[in-house]
Amino acid sequence: MAISYPGFSFDITHRDPAGSKARIGTLSTPHGAIQTPNFIFCGTKAAIKGLTTEQMRDEKTDIILANTYHLMIQPGADLVAKLGGLHKMMNWHGPMLTDSGGYQIFAMGHGSVADEVKGRRTTTREKTLLKITEEGATFRSYTNGEKLFLTPEKSIDIQRKLGPDFVVQLDECTPFHVDRKYTARSMKMSHRWGDRSLTAFKEFGGISANGLPQAMYGIVQGGVYPDLRKESAEIVANQDFFATAVGGCLGATREQMHDVVGMAMAHVHPTRPVHLLGIGGIVDIFEGVALGIDTFDCVSPTRIARHGWALAPGVKGERLNMRNARFKDDDTPIDAECGCYACRTASRGYIHHLLKAEEMLGMQLLTMHNVHTMNRLMRDIRAAIITGTLAEARRKWVWQAGDSE
Amino acid sequence: MAISYPGFSFDITHRDPAGSKARIGTLSTPHGAIQTPNFIFCGTKAAIKGLTTEQMRDEKTDIILANTYHLMIQPGADLVAKLGGLHKMMNWHGPMLTDSGGYQIFAMGHGSVADEVKGRRTTTREKTLLKITEEGATFRSYTNGEKLFLTPEKSIDIQRKLGPDFVVQLDECTPFHVDRKYTARSMKMSHRWGDRSLTAFKEFGGISANGLPQAMYGIVQGGVYPDLRKESAEIVANQDFFATAVGGCLGATREQMHDVVGMAMAHVHPTRPVHLLGIGGIVDIFEGVALGIDTFDCVSPTRIARHGWALAPGVKGERLNMRNARFKDDDTPIDAECGCYACRTASRGYIHHLLKAEEMLGMQLLTMHNVHTMNRLMRDIRAAIITGTLAEARRKWVWQAGDSE
Repeated sequence: MAISYPGFSFDITHRDPAGSKARIGTLSTPHGAIQTPNFIFCGTKAAIKGLTTEQMRDEKTDIILANTYHLMIQPGADLVAKLGGLHKMMNWHGPMLTDSGGYQIFAMGHGSVADEVKGRRTTTREKTLLKITEEGATFRSYTNGEKLFLTPEKSIDIQRKLGPDFVVQLDECTPFHVDRKYTARSMKMSHRWGDRSLTAFKEFGGISANGLPQAMYGIVQGGVYPDLRKESAEIVANQDFFATAVGGCLGATREQMHDVVGMAMAHVHPTRPVHLLGIGGIVDIFEGVALGIDTFDCVSPTRIARHGWALAPGVKGERLNMRNARFKDDDTPIDAECGCYACRTASRGYIHHLLKAEEMLGMQLLTMHNVHTMNRLMRDIRAAIITGTLAEARRKWVWQAGDSE
Repeated sequence: MAISYPGFSFDITHRDPAGSKARIGTLSTPHGAIQTPNFIFCGTKAAIKGLTTEQMRDEKTDIILANTYHLMIQPGADLVAKLGGLHKMMNWHGPMLTDSGGYQIFAMGHGSVADEVKGRRTTTREKTLLKITEEGATFRSYTNGEKLFLTPEKSIDIQRKLGPDFVVQLDECTPFHVDRKYTARSMKMSHRWGDRSLTAFKEFGGISANGLPQAMYGIVQGGVYPDLRKESAEIVANQDFFATAVGGCLGATREQMHDVVGMAMAHVHPTRPVHLLGIGGIVDIFEGVALGIDTFDCVSPTRIARHGWALAPGVKGERLNMRNARFKDDDTPIDAECGCYACRTASRGYIHHLLKAEEMLGMQLLTMHNVHTMNRLMRDIRAAIITGTLAEARRKWVWQAGDSE
């Protein structure tokens, strides 16, 4: 029996008249509808680092996520349910997603998540990931070393208790250094885990612990291999998911990542929303959008803010280092066209001072700015899709050789 | 020639009908008027740690301060002036005070400021305070060890550039362990520094670098000695200050502090506003208000928030430790009657989780709560002065033996 996903819908309202696969959609949830393409901000431990949810809304945020892996360990899914679920606990009343927990289990077992997905490092397995079997993954808690066991069914049950709108199936996030044979075997196991996730989801009726319907993403794996990506995308399209996520190893370079995403996108379910896991670079978003990706997530915009970096359109490397002494006595805002709280109220010189003085407020102002900038980027992209001017929007946002630095 | 302090006034509008020396005043500045008694929050390095100035206003804050000592070192007074002065730089448009820098120079030379003022520790002089002479104080920068020299004239010039409404004369903040002879000699030098501060202030016309008038506080010293406190208060009352601050060593115990403040208050200028430096405990504020103190400042409300403590009326020790496991699954707000952003949107259980997870947001929510609570305390106190019910207000706010814990 098919899952109906009551309260959820995805309507593709526009396609790029200039010929790319970019599209505009309306993604509706029990917590409201958002326009896509859109960016999902990471509230890993049920908090956006440094901002209240009110500030997130003030900076025009539509959707956020939280991480099952962190929350199952601290404070635990039952406690989140007791506090009313993630929406109530965090005071976030818009759409929300949780991942399956798999990403961090495997990434923390293998090394850095981003390094693995982006192929920047090969590491041997470390102690936190103890064992992967058909049944599930055994790993150690990052807080107290306790041995934990996560299965597809447990992940779905945890996400039912956490109560987001969107839940994600458990998968094995294959590292960069594994070979084709491992990738193929792992991919097939992930799809069996997808079937088990759907069965578990149906068993509880797709209703969260706080009584609202949820919708599930399946994950396309297959590493850097075109035939495996095709096979994986087709399997997921035939499973009873509401939406599709593209995960796993996306290659060693930015160019390879674009190729790998393209391999999957040629075969995903055509009318379901598609999420690209863990990618948030401005140029990568333009590439992804042109391939038909509807949503993105990445810790980068908020994380680099805490290290003193401000995202800015048309800047080399996509960001300004606000700790640079050249901003010391600069009384202009980071970006006069931005409109975020930081750009309306603070000068570059003041932000530079706050960073040098190690004042939390410096990180907070930059987080607001980067959140606002990502949301502005996505608005610009949506407007450009409708008018067929994605190339011009990209020209404005992405620095290229010959531009000033 | 007397200083006129244009743009400033202090009008005592009510006195406690129940007989204490408590009073209500309207303290007017070029950045607006506030009602007293009131509490001044510490924005040490030109930032309230963890909150935007908009959030400070949302939590009903009337007045803040910044520290000359920190700002003269980083980013420097000239740079603050170049960025438009403290009000513009910080986006704070209400009344503001800077201190003279002396407090930190001497306290960091002698050990912890609070410990010294409150007599909790005797230390020998450390290296940061190198020399005190009639001319001024030589000390080392806390950032790079550079040798710096601060005189009364330099302090006034720095505060002119920083541009707050209220400036404070340089004084020697005598430590607890010095004897009566040292205290008397130091007090007299501080008053000569007061004269020099007033002369310097008159020379630049009492107008800040950004063109607005400023008003100056003189400081009453005299340690724990009644005759010295009397002499000091009378000297300051006869100097041409706009307002009075009570500083220096206030004794070894809470009781002695109340005695020492009383010694000074019997002799201060009767119609000038009086500030009590560095005191912010709830019971201390009730004591100070009853002695006629108009304003208080202390890092405590915002500092303890960052360590996980929530101020609350009628609670033993004046605060709740939100890291305590008993709050783990508590879905009620810190204080249902509070009305701050944290109490409107977050449960104790969520705040407990954020603190355990080391999320900045936990500190931020508690800072909002403590700021709001101090402002609510001061509103309650002002209302109680008018109705002669300070004893009842104190009974509500201050825990006493026999109350539940």
